[in-house]
Amino acid sequence: MSIELVENRYGKSSVRLLEVRRRPDRHDVREVTVDVACAGDELAAAYATGDNRHVLPTDTMKNTVYALAREHSCKEIEDFGLLLGRHFMAHHPQLQQVEVALSARHWSRVEVAGRPHPHAFVGSRADRRTALVRADRQGIAVSAGIADLFVLKTAGSSFAGFPRDRFTTLPEARDRVLATRICAEWRYRGADVDFGFAFAGIQQRLVETFAMHDSRSLQHTIYAMGEAVLEGFSEVEQIHLTLPNKHYLLADLSPFGLDNDNQVFIATDEPYGLIEGTLRASRP
Amino acid sequence: MSIELVENRYGKSSVRLLEVRRRPDRHDVREVTVDVACAGDELAAAYATGDNRHVLPTDTMKNTVYALAREHSCKEIEDFGLLLGRHFMAHHPQLQQVEVALSARHWSRVEVAGRPHPHAFVGSRADRRTALVRADRQGIAVSAGIADLFVLKTAGSSFAGFPRDRFTTLPEARDRVLATRICAEWRYRGADVDFGFAFAGIQQRLVETFAMHDSRSLQHTIYAMGEAVLEGFSEVEQIHLTLPNKHYLLADLSPFGLDNDNQVFIATDEPYGLIEGTLRASRP
Amino acid sequence: MSIELVENRYGKSSVRLLEVRRRPDRHDVREVTVDVACAGDELAAAYATGDNRHVLPTDTMKNTVYALAREHSCKEIEDFGLLLGRHFMAHHPQLQQVEVALSARHWSRVEVAGRPHPHAFVGSRADRRTALVRADRQGIAVSAGIADLFVLKTAGSSFAGFPRDRFTTLPEARDRVLATRICAEWRYRGADVDFGFAFAGIQQRLVETFAMHDSRSLQHTIYAMGEAVLEGFSEVEQIHLTLPNKHYLLADLSPFGLDNDNQVFIATDEPYGLIEGTLRASRP
Amino acid sequence: MSIELVENRYGKSSVRLLEVRRRPDRHDVREVTVDVACAGDELAAAYATGDNRHVLPTDTMKNTVYALAREHSCKEIEDFGLLLGRHFMAHHPQLQQVEVALSARHWSRVEVAGRPHPHAFVGSRADRRTALVRADRQGIAVSAGIADLFVLKTAGSSFAGFPRDRFTTLPEARDRVLATRICAEWRYRGADVDFGFAFAGIQQRLVETFAMHDSRSLQHTIYAMGEAVLEGFSEVEQIHLTLPNKHYLLADLSPFGLDNDNQVFIATDEPYGLIEGTLRASRP
Repeated sequence: MSIELVENRYGKSSVRLLEVRRRPDRHDVREVTVDVACAGDELAAAYATGDNRHVLPTDTMKNTVYALAREHSCKEIEDFGLLLGRHFMAHHPQLQQVEVALSARHWSRVEVAGRPHPHAFVGSRADRRTALVRADRQGIAVSAGIADLFVLKTAGSSFAGFPRDRFTTLPEARDRVLATRICAEWRYRGADVDFGFAFAGIQQRLVETFAMHDSRSLQHTIYAMGEAVLEGFSEVEQIHLTLPNKHYLLADLSPFGLDNDNQVFIATDEPYGLIEGTLRASRP
Repeated sequence: MSIELVENRYGKSSVRLLEVRRRPDRHDVREVTVDVACAGDELAAAYATGDNRHVLPTDTMKNTVYALAREHSCKEIEDFGLLLGRHFMAHHPQLQQVEVALSARHWSRVEVAGRPHPHAFVGSRADRRTALVRADRQGIAVSAGIADLFVLKTAGSSFAGFPRDRFTTLPEARDRVLATRICAEWRYRGADVDFGFAFAGIQQRLVETFAMHDSRSLQHTIYAMGEAVLEGFSEVEQIHLTLPNKHYLLADLSPFGLDNDNQVFIATDEPYGLIEGTLRASRP
Repeated sequence: MSIELVENRYGKSSVRLLEVRRRPDRHDVREVTVDVACAGDELAAAYATGDNRHVLPTDTMKNTVYALAREHSCKEIEDFGLLLGRHFMAHHPQLQQVEVALSARHWSRVEVAGRPHPHAFVGSRADRRTALVRADRQGIAVSAGIADLFVLKTAGSSFAGFPRDRFTTLPEARDRVLATRICAEWRYRGADVDFGFAFAGIQQRLVETFAMHDSRSLQHTIYAMGEAVLEGFSEVEQIHLTLPNKHYLLADLSPFGLDNDNQVFIATDEPYGLIEGTLRASRP
Repeated sequence: MSIELVENRYGKSSVRLLEVRRRPDRHDVREVTVDVACAGDELAAAYATGDNRHVLPTDTMKNTVYALAREHSCKEIEDFGLLLGRHFMAHHPQLQQVEVALSARHWSRVEVAGRPHPHAFVGSRADRRTALVRADRQGIAVSAGIADLFVLKTAGSSFAGFPRDRFTTLPEARDRVLATRICAEWRYRGADVDFGFAFAGIQQRLVETFAMHDSRSLQHTIYAMGEAVLEGFSEVEQIHLTLPNKHYLLADLSPFGLDNDNQVFIATDEPYGLIEGTLRASRP
């Protein structure tokens, strides 16, 4: 028997950074969590024999994140990911592949008496803007995304016409609550994109499509959302959507002599549907 | 030796409800998690001997939440808490005390092309509006609150002049990042309050005070926030604030030949300061 | 209107410590998370005016935990809590009250070929051993506890004879699954206790009583568990138990032509019952 | 531009099941969480046009889990996964692929006075036994695994000889604490395996190897652990290990005039190293 290391990968995760840009009239902040991971055939010796000659310490990866954040002023998290990805590839020839994943928290400026405050922020949003930069010796690719954006609609959603077998009890639903937590990741055609502008537009398009679409299933909604992004944003070549079906169950109030015409629902976490799809645009 | 049951308390927690109000031109939604707890001397027999004659099942509490939500249309979560508290006290004379805690998720209406959508909502906020109704045979008290509202400021915060002992290494800070997650609970003087209006005003006041106050410590900020609420809202008689100090540590970049004039910080979760205070207004 | 600070309290939370005791033949480890909180009238000035003269920094509290762990070798976490509580009271006369809460993770020694390994440990348990030391200018009190110990029984549990009202749908259960997550906290009569021995005995007694008791409700079980501890351990003067009722719902398989005689259950997290009780022993 | 659905996948997640086997002398329990996911070209119409003719409802998947648990008595979770995977493939010809992921909680029998109790269990372990069954029209594959098994060693671990660059500050460590949370997944050569026996042996081997190996890095440890499993268990053809490096940082106590010879450590969660590797055995 022979044993082979068929995959290797290592890095530092959850490097958490707050950047404060101090302008004369105001401060700007960005909080981002960075994961760095790398891989390469030359790392195999570290696994097999404990030879660390090529092992860039994950502690150095962490230091690099903070130091490069100080040395450079990146406009968007995608730019910071590109900076990090290029740095590691340029300085560490033993690496064949580097991935930098970034997740930004939303901090929005406080308003006091209707006017923006120069240095106070509120960060109550659970959703995150994400980016993923993948570099190898052939090139570099940038993806961006949204994590954990909850949306819900109380009309415009049905689920019917599905097959029934011995274990089917679900009634056909002509009008149901549809709720999900949007996790989307889209890959850009190149790195020369106005990432902030694109992100805002894509997020808006995803939410609008969720709202406006006449949904026959969450699968159907995924396709509509993906299609709307690919049609509206030519810089995007592929989009992956993962949408859990967050079930709100109609409460049965008949034991209490009450009807319930889609007014009172039981919110549940488990079990949940999990629906995924990847759409790609082919452009001539 | 004799053994005494010196406290009892039981109920149902995490009853999760979505209410949809279907108006001709739009739907409104409210998602709230309800905890019901009750206590009473007559319940002691259930503990000591297993006599369930007076034990209102927690399953019935859950059913009551959904049924009363269908039968009544409460404007605010405090009103729903009052409805539930009064119901349990009125129908179950064996109970001496009932507490109803409510926690509402923020669902805000989606805008499509700048116009409010009639039935689609986005729910990405991590902070929660809370309420607590406490009823006993003497009366009923209403508190409201905010949970998990993150705020941060990059100026206007110092911490200096503190005592030093053998174990002190913290330098005096004349200018630091101050960040916290606001958890506030305030008690109203009565139940005849416009709860929605008061909540919005108090939340705004808390955030504005955090932003504007020249803070010498988080203790100092708590006092300022509490004082601002008590002075601005005569319907509030007491406020409790719990503010974790979410430390952002200045990254030491000197090993890399870089200065760091409050620009790059390490975001941390642990350990954290935890600062609390309760302020009460005495009105003549 | 006058405003009064009616309560103050602050400290450092989640100070996480690993101690390694290096003996000739083996290493011992203890991992504990420490929260320190203090209060005192003299701290009020810090809140009201930002005067930090009496504010022992929470950063110093953290340093003290690590330094005292190095200077002293405490046998049990209760001993370490006592050491910390006494230290803060002795060195900081402005404090009126100090609380030290400790939560220990279970690390158990790995066995290799049936023999204990000198320096490798497995830490897969979710339950925690806890302790709470409360010191004020009158004295010092020690409590200990268990957090998050899951237990389940498939027989010996009923719930019947409860009152029914308009909102009751729960059937009487003569034989049900009973499951809970034990959170217990008991107060010792003094500080001169063999804490490790007592903890092991009390944990065993709690679990055995849960198993053996013929339960008519979780309230009934709480009483039996508390009584067993108070009767068996004269060093305990009071015990508080908080037991969520982790519902396992019988799956209705009749639509599929299947019976289900307490064999297949749906495990749920929400909603859940929450049952509490405090028992005290009076000894002549 | 044309748009193509390049991937589809959907199912039900977090179906939580408790099975009670009622024997004359004792009860046995198994608690397992099941995720079902399926994919197939014929499902594309559901995405593109909302045609649900081929969409087996996720609600039916859930029902099937509970019903088949009642109809069949599977010895191990892998067997139950095989049963479910085969059921969905056999009854739903439109599916090209089905994945069944299972995660079992450890419930161990309570001992009372040293003797096993017939129907009471304690479930305090955080680690989980997992299984993954993947079926397609060519065949069926079974993997098994461990999630979240924490291990720590206080000797036998170094990290040195790594490259240094401008951003390296990490000192070489000849003797450090090494801690990780084992997540392992191994693929069996076939389905005719004594899964329970193999699982117990592999878990033991992984932990023993972690303990005994003279580690030069976590990469080095991964290789040793994988190799030990592949050499010891011929029924395993491939193993993937994901080991976060849970850093315990030596506390610097020199400001307090104290040395610290690997005795007092700061336990941290973030940032953390994340090390992965896949090993495969080629057998003639």
